[in-house]
Amino acid sequence: MIDNINPADIEKRSFEIISELLGAKELDPQNAPVVKRVIHTTADFDYADNLVFSEDAVAKGLAALRAGCDIVTDTQMAKAGINKTILARLGGTVHCFMSDPDVAAEAKKRGITRAFVSMEKAAAIGKPCIFAIGNAPTALIALYDLIKSGKTAPALVIGVPVGFVNVIESKELILNMNSHAGDQTDDSVNERSGAKTDIPYIVAKGRKGGSNVAAAICNALLYQITR
Amino acid sequence: MIDNINPADIEKRSFEIISELLGAKELDPQNAPVVKRVIHTTADFDYADNLVFSEDAVAKGLAALRAGCDIVTDTQMAKAGINKTILARLGGTVHCFMSDPDVAAEAKKRGITRAFVSMEKAAAIGKPCIFAIGNAPTALIALYDLIKSGKTAPALVIGVPVGFVNVIESKELILNMNSHAGDQTDDSVNERSGAKTDIPYIVAKGRKGGSNVAAAICNALLYQITR
Repeated sequence: MIDNINPADIEKRSFEIISELLGAKELDPQNAPVVKRVIHTTADFDYADNLVFSEDAVAKGLAALRAGCDIVTDTQMAKAGINKTILARLGGTVHCFMSDPDVAAEAKKRGITRAFVSMEKAAAIGKPCIFAIGNAPTALIALYDLIKSGKTAPALVIGVPVGFVNVIESKELILNMNSHAGDQTDDSVNERSGAKTDIPYIVAKGRKGGSNVAAAICNALLYQITR
Repeated sequence: MIDNINPADIEKRSFEIISELLGAKELDPQNAPVVKRVIHTTADFDYADNLVFSEDAVAKGLAALRAGCDIVTDTQMAKAGINKTILARLGGTVHCFMSDPDVAAEAKKRGITRAFVSMEKAAAIGKPCIFAIGNAPTALIALYDLIKSGKTAPALVIGVPVGFVNVIESKELILNMNSHAGDQTDDSVNERSGAKTDIPYIVAKGRKGGSNVAAAICNALLYQITR
């Protein structure tokens, strides 16, 4: 039976249902709006367990957005899904360089991936950025290398690529990014370990994620500021 | 450990892993490429069970795309995710009318949803269309009403809205669309039953779906034609 609910109330009712279905599951109050919006976007309750937040990641992301930071994504889909009206009001804009002709040409010339070149281009933006990676593990790995070599210091890394090859590993790099060298056990981390960092992150552990999840996390932050 | 796989081979390897993980699960060979691409997009194996195909839905969708049909979506995200290069080569284009100013004005004037008006606008396109609904159950319900009142006859309905209010019910409408009136047991279907239809559909039963799933299904069809 179709519920004749006012469209404006659908989102409110949806979040009430999500809270009911989460039941006794305890979420950190700071992180709950992000977790619930990702579940709202996917109807997938695995995200209640998958999403990992570094300390005060949400507060740091909110502060960066309030200060007018930009957002860099790795897909046109995530760019389409992020609320650009609210972001613009705060002074920010969304970038996706993956399909730029100069990125393609540079990648071909140097024999490297477009994901790597697009992250290099993003690192050169020259203002604080949140990086929201929802698709390409290669982009997240490139971002990690740029962070470790001191070429960029994101205001927040949203690391939610999806898939079956190098996806889990790329997220582990970010999850271990701020550890002391002595804490690192994974070879791929040791190989790549550079300067000690203190970059906030929100990561979806495991294979799941996506452009829709990346956009939902950005919007969960934006809506906390202006709704 | 990061796998130094050639980026061009990642998708191939991903599909091999998906096939391995599906194990003994039997998929209809016609539908398997669609199911696997949705899993590739979400890393969510629930779609191996959730996706319901009407008889020859894939063959009918492929025939429509080969004949140059357009695709109508309900979000800019799905529009961004659909491979428009391949679609254009076949003679088609993607439409999303949800944020058109005339749609907003008309909805306000008549006191109805933008989703309804955008589906009316799509029904008036005047060439065969695949409707790929990944977000708004209201759009799918509007489409159902337009089909039942004879105002549109989609080449294929991709019904994969996501969420917690009216989502399951909107999909049930499409799943029961082609049944004889006597087969219908749900009140909401009886209320709305009109002319007998024979419209092919691909529906994600239950709450799950999304713009990414809608785009993945479109691309799974497009890639069968030209890759």
